[in-house]
Amino acid sequence: MDQIDLMKELHVPSDKKIVLLVMDGLGGLPGKDGKTELEAARTPNMDRLSRESMLGLSTPVAPGITPGSGPGHLALFGYNALKYQIGRGVLEALGIGLRLGEKSLAARGNFCTLDPKSGVITDRRAGRIPTDECARLVEKLRQISIDGVDITVQPVKDYRFVLVLEGEDLHDGLTETDPQKTGLKPLPVKPIRNEAEKSALILNEWLEKAFELLRNERPANGCTLRGIAKNPDLPTFKDVYGLDACAIATYPMYKGIARLVGMDVPDAGESIETEIRTLREKWHDYDFFFFHVKKTDSYGEDGNFDAKVGVIEETDKIIPDILKLGPGVLVITGDHSTPWALKSHSWHELPVLIHADNIRFDSVTEFGETACIMGALGHIRHTDILPLAMAHAGRLTKFGA
Amino acid sequence: MDQIDLMKELHVPSDKKIVLLVMDGLGGLPGKDGKTELEAARTPNMDRLSRESMLGLSTPVAPGITPGSGPGHLALFGYNALKYQIGRGVLEALGIGLRLGEKSLAARGNFCTLDPKSGVITDRRAGRIPTDECARLVEKLRQISIDGVDITVQPVKDYRFVLVLEGEDLHDGLTETDPQKTGLKPLPVKPIRNEAEKSALILNEWLEKAFELLRNERPANGCTLRGIAKNPDLPTFKDVYGLDACAIATYPMYKGIARLVGMDVPDAGESIETEIRTLREKWHDYDFFFFHVKKTDSYGEDGNFDAKVGVIEETDKIIPDILKLGPGVLVITGDHSTPWALKSHSWHELPVLIHADNIRFDSVTEFGETACIMGALGHIRHTDILPLAMAHAGRLTKFGA
Repeated sequence: MDQIDLMKELHVPSDKKIVLLVMDGLGGLPGKDGKTELEAARTPNMDRLSRESMLGLSTPVAPGITPGSGPGHLALFGYNALKYQIGRGVLEALGIGLRLGEKSLAARGNFCTLDPKSGVITDRRAGRIPTDECARLVEKLRQISIDGVDITVQPVKDYRFVLVLEGEDLHDGLTETDPQKTGLKPLPVKPIRNEAEKSALILNEWLEKAFELLRNERPANGCTLRGIAKNPDLPTFKDVYGLDACAIATYPMYKGIARLVGMDVPDAGESIETEIRTLREKWHDYDFFFFHVKKTDSYGEDGNFDAKVGVIEETDKIIPDILKLGPGVLVITGDHSTPWALKSHSWHELPVLIHADNIRFDSVTEFGETACIMGALGHIRHTDILPLAMAHAGRLTKFGA
Repeated sequence: MDQIDLMKELHVPSDKKIVLLVMDGLGGLPGKDGKTELEAARTPNMDRLSRESMLGLSTPVAPGITPGSGPGHLALFGYNALKYQIGRGVLEALGIGLRLGEKSLAARGNFCTLDPKSGVITDRRAGRIPTDECARLVEKLRQISIDGVDITVQPVKDYRFVLVLEGEDLHDGLTETDPQKTGLKPLPVKPIRNEAEKSALILNEWLEKAFELLRNERPANGCTLRGIAKNPDLPTFKDVYGLDACAIATYPMYKGIARLVGMDVPDAGESIETEIRTLREKWHDYDFFFFHVKKTDSYGEDGNFDAKVGVIEETDKIIPDILKLGPGVLVITGDHSTPWALKSHSWHELPVLIHADNIRFDSVTEFGETACIMGALGHIRHTDILPLAMAHAGRLTKFGA
């Protein structure tokens, strides 16, 4: 019996609502005066909350493992990220708002440059063509039709596009066509499992037609397909937790991940202000809110300490607005660390704050990585967070007699 | 997907080297002034290092479980010691430098004393005969030949020897012949699995011939076989971590365990001084160094508090030599605790220190069991150590999109 089964069995109704506030890439590393981004930020509201909360540090997936956004969020939502792996094609497709049904097979596509004579790849990203050139080429690729399959091609950004096939008997378990270095020809799609043979045939036919259509284009006279995958059949939040769940996010990718677990995703605008307004509007319609702040991660990736601090301070200002709504449980954390010093996602633990009735208190009086070492939560895993939130919301009944 | 699979998938090259300094049986218990062996030791170098390191406490295998040297080290190397069990026969054989191939089956042998009339065991260790008597008897046992099998018998120490069979179709899954108490006859070898039937027949034939040869010896007129096992096919350090790994150890057993996971094992002499010299000589040839200090454990087993303190202080003196080589990551810990007060291995957590760039700092300023409670690492498992070291060496790429 795994955690998902346990939650399915034990969840009970309650009128206490849960808010999971995720600052993407929140965890950091010390800057010039020895403080992390979160420690350097002026966060009077979160610090005040810390005195009435349980704090700790959480490992997203496993010690030493740097998660992508998919696994980081799945773990936060209580799903074993090593068990439920989501193909990049699926994330890209959901990220740009495409819906993937049972019959869909999604791939991430890259335009590339081929040597016209030998056919080997000379640039895996076709000189990073701009998005409008990508859109023009995608328009061309939409001419391709194959019997028995509905085909969707959508530009993403720069040289990236998404290909979605829809039809009977499509399966994943397929190799990628990008040879991962220049000087080699694009590879054919090969089935890893017998049941994926039909899908491989269709994708190779599509690729052949695509190469024909792109032949005289420059620099993007070819393309590769990666992360060919179906929508994994994730148990939904309603099934697992009995929660009517709402995702409040501004970026397509996080809306996509939320949809994967069955959350509703209303339009929440483009800023923290529009997000908090959406939270207020939707407050009475849902039991659970996933509230996503993106820019902490973006500035972490840029190595911009001060700008990341700024987003954390901006987020701190909405804490009173959230508390005014009266959540039964408020969790504040991130999906993974994106320390300014590394300019990338990292494996470091995340500070976590759980504010609720009936908590065990600790001596932590500020929300920061170092202070959280002494917190009552200790060192947990991301998958522990939802069960703890559920318990504090009075939404889990006793296990066993 | 388990941790080994994950490491296999995610490891990437880096020029940062990793040093794992293992003081065998490091963990201790308070002595007369309330300090453990490590806390009582004067360790200025490790204490200074603590201020620039992440510290914590680690459980070798599972809470309450006292590991042997095999599981303790396998866990340190990132292998699930409950999954990868190594028969004692294999450890003893590797320990004395025998190579075990695919066709080898190894057993640990004990000489014992039998009552000449009834045949029951009167002393399971034959009065702890000295090693040279053991060698004389082993010489006698080498007369035994069995069709289709190459047989190696080697004395180990006192009443202990190793028996290795080599041939086609040999399998483990066999019972031991030591009845574990006196007053009972040695048991026959029985197959637990069908495929081990042939091996049981051969071992019982060997035992019959051995008893015949030993009949007139005193006190060692019999023997028992234990831990009959094949070399488990462990994934190597190169496969799992992409690391060229070198073991620097003075005792055969630890060299044997290192060989099991594919480490190179150069001769490192007999002392900490010769070991550090070997580290210096081999520095440019490897990515990873397992540096083993044995005597902390030996003195723990003796219940000799002061001598264990002495070995820890001696080890502290080589820390600057190690740091001078410029490791990307230096881990200091032990395989298990061997508290002087228990004169044996124990289940207690081990202090761990991870020194690297991009660590989360904590307030710990000395390397000791009590101080480590407050460390940023918290309470981890031995299997977490290698993934953390790999991450800090920049040797793991992102998991998932």
